[in-house]
Amino acid sequence: MLMLPQTRNDLPQVASDSPYRELESDELAPLATGAWILGAGGGGSPYLSYLNLRQHYREGGRVTLMDPMALGDDDLVAVVSNMGAPLVGQERLSDPAYAAKPVRMMQDYLGRPFRAVMSVEIGGGNAIQPFLVAAEMDLPVIDADAMGRAFPEAQMTSFAIGDLAMFPLTLADIRDNEVIITRAASWKWMERISRKACTEVGSIAATCKAPRSGREVKDWGILYTVTKAIGIGRAVEAARASHGDPIEAVLAREGGQRLFQGKVTDIARRTTEGFLRGGASVEGLDGDRGHDFRLEFQNEYAVGFLDGEPHVTVPDIITVMDSLSGEAIGTETLRYGQRVTVIVLPSPEVLTTPKGLEHVGPRAFGYDLDFRSAFGGGP
Amino acid sequence: MLMLPQTRNDLPQVASDSPYRELESDELAPLATGAWILGAGGGGSPYLSYLNLRQHYREGGRVTLMDPMALGDDDLVAVVSNMGAPLVGQERLSDPAYAAKPVRMMQDYLGRPFRAVMSVEIGGGNAIQPFLVAAEMDLPVIDADAMGRAFPEAQMTSFAIGDLAMFPLTLADIRDNEVIITRAASWKWMERISRKACTEVGSIAATCKAPRSGREVKDWGILYTVTKAIGIGRAVEAARASHGDPIEAVLAREGGQRLFQGKVTDIARRTTEGFLRGGASVEGLDGDRGHDFRLEFQNEYAVGFLDGEPHVTVPDIITVMDSLSGEAIGTETLRYGQRVTVIVLPSPEVLTTPKGLEHVGPRAFGYDLDFRSAFGGGP
Repeated sequence: MLMLPQTRNDLPQVASDSPYRELESDELAPLATGAWILGAGGGGSPYLSYLNLRQHYREGGRVTLMDPMALGDDDLVAVVSNMGAPLVGQERLSDPAYAAKPVRMMQDYLGRPFRAVMSVEIGGGNAIQPFLVAAEMDLPVIDADAMGRAFPEAQMTSFAIGDLAMFPLTLADIRDNEVIITRAASWKWMERISRKACTEVGSIAATCKAPRSGREVKDWGILYTVTKAIGIGRAVEAARASHGDPIEAVLAREGGQRLFQGKVTDIARRTTEGFLRGGASVEGLDGDRGHDFRLEFQNEYAVGFLDGEPHVTVPDIITVMDSLSGEAIGTETLRYGQRVTVIVLPSPEVLTTPKGLEHVGPRAFGYDLDFRSAFGGGP
Repeated sequence: MLMLPQTRNDLPQVASDSPYRELESDELAPLATGAWILGAGGGGSPYLSYLNLRQHYREGGRVTLMDPMALGDDDLVAVVSNMGAPLVGQERLSDPAYAAKPVRMMQDYLGRPFRAVMSVEIGGGNAIQPFLVAAEMDLPVIDADAMGRAFPEAQMTSFAIGDLAMFPLTLADIRDNEVIITRAASWKWMERISRKACTEVGSIAATCKAPRSGREVKDWGILYTVTKAIGIGRAVEAARASHGDPIEAVLAREGGQRLFQGKVTDIARRTTEGFLRGGASVEGLDGDRGHDFRLEFQNEYAVGFLDGEPHVTVPDIITVMDSLSGEAIGTETLRYGQRVTVIVLPSPEVLTTPKGLEHVGPRAFGYDLDFRSAFGGGP
């Protein structure tokens, strides 16, 4: 039996020989808080999904978290996400039956049951999506994802970077529309076709991405990111409880950097082609007075410009925090007058490899910029 | 064993007790000619599909036509079409392997083999699509369709008028993209989602619509329309051979009317949202001098205006013919300066019922007009 790695000091106490543990009810809020920070502004607000999961716990339900290294090579893992534009997700509520629909479709299509479920992205509400599915289908959730953050497009995953198969994909909406993309010519074609289906049903849809084998998850998944999100959320909680600085607690824990603080003076966003796109300007306050910082986003914050010069880019995790509360602020909730602090956290290593940057570097978002990590890395 | 109905005098001579007959090689051109006339400007030019089928015949292949009334109630029938914008179909060639792809997908998905194949629409190139599939898969083609003409949208079929199930639908493009719409909330949702998938892969895709039982085809199919198309094509050929008027031959045979003749003076079309939309103006010549006729279309001609007043509408079959050659002219090939004759042919009765008109009447195309048949019918 595999053990959780000893180097991770934030793991809760579990029977040391079990790869399973029950997610405690006091971990739900930290999971949501941490996932929202890792979302880089996207992945959708976790709040509504968190309320759903909390309700499940209040009714006595529990969900089990599973160590990915305990997966058998041939186990079948469902990779789920609530796909679409975050602003729409604010208005159309998710629930476990809806989240599970594409997973059941995929089982029917494959004629094989899933061993477990995981999120395509640990950032935002999608971190909680597999827990809703797990509650509905009595499956464990794998402690891993495929982005280590949130990203807007299908080909922006560690699985795509690993050149794994991109199909089949199942998609369901809240009416009675169900689509299976049984083959796609490439990851980008899968993104294009699934995005159009998603857009047509209202720019939000529950999806089950290409199923993964246990071997694929172990080789290409970004591991222990559920635990990481909970740890970040706990650090924020601890700082608040001790009247400390939650932002500082996150930076210290993750080795992040404070980039800018100020007041939002301009924000423009449009829901287009199934994405939330736009930009925001922040006027410096305190130590940053006299400077300005501009953020551009496609669901997630993609690039930050300091005084007009590129300063930070994907795949580094650019997160905007409320300067007072230390809550993350999504691209759909950023608004005029907010006092914000822009921070950056390191991205998973696989994203900063040359192959990784082809998928998620600034050029993949349409910027004619090389990636220079805020943490000194880069090609 | 069922016999072909005796009231149809255009049936070729066959062994009178067989519901099957081989389509003769000298029927291929008449089928294409007749289907193009029944297409009401749409369904895509049959020319390229005709060349494909002729090549199959030159290589010794043959396709069997099957009487729909010989279907067993539980037989499974594939309903195929090349979906998209006719103008794109001109540029991207169809072939039997491509046409058969969604049919094979559907068999795999259902886990049941098809007994036969039929076209969703007898108009245009889609009349020939099932013959390409038949050649590839060694299935008979049912002598029926679901429109008795061509129409642009999924819910504009006799099957939809009969409230039959609209899913599943399979769709494939010429790359390696394959989509199954396993459920749809309504016929219109099926249209919307399949259209978006079609548009994204280039506004042309091979599709297999919701499979039909033999019972459904017998109850709701529009029967013997392949034979009808061939008969129209033969009438055109006979008129040409005897230096007669092919247009007059079509009108006499089908009980149609000559509406207008003149010269195309204006044509505007755009490929948009997976359709070819636009309008054309015809300036009167000869007996129509001093008058003008305007045609508006969405893939097919939908409404004709004489001197600015609505004169003819769907579901009557509005067809534009080259005044000299008697060839039909599609919405994608109509051009400035052409000498044309606008004719109208009666539509199948099911389309002019109150329920039929909800699906295919002028209001279904966005016109605030009641249907008044050129043939005196209407609600």
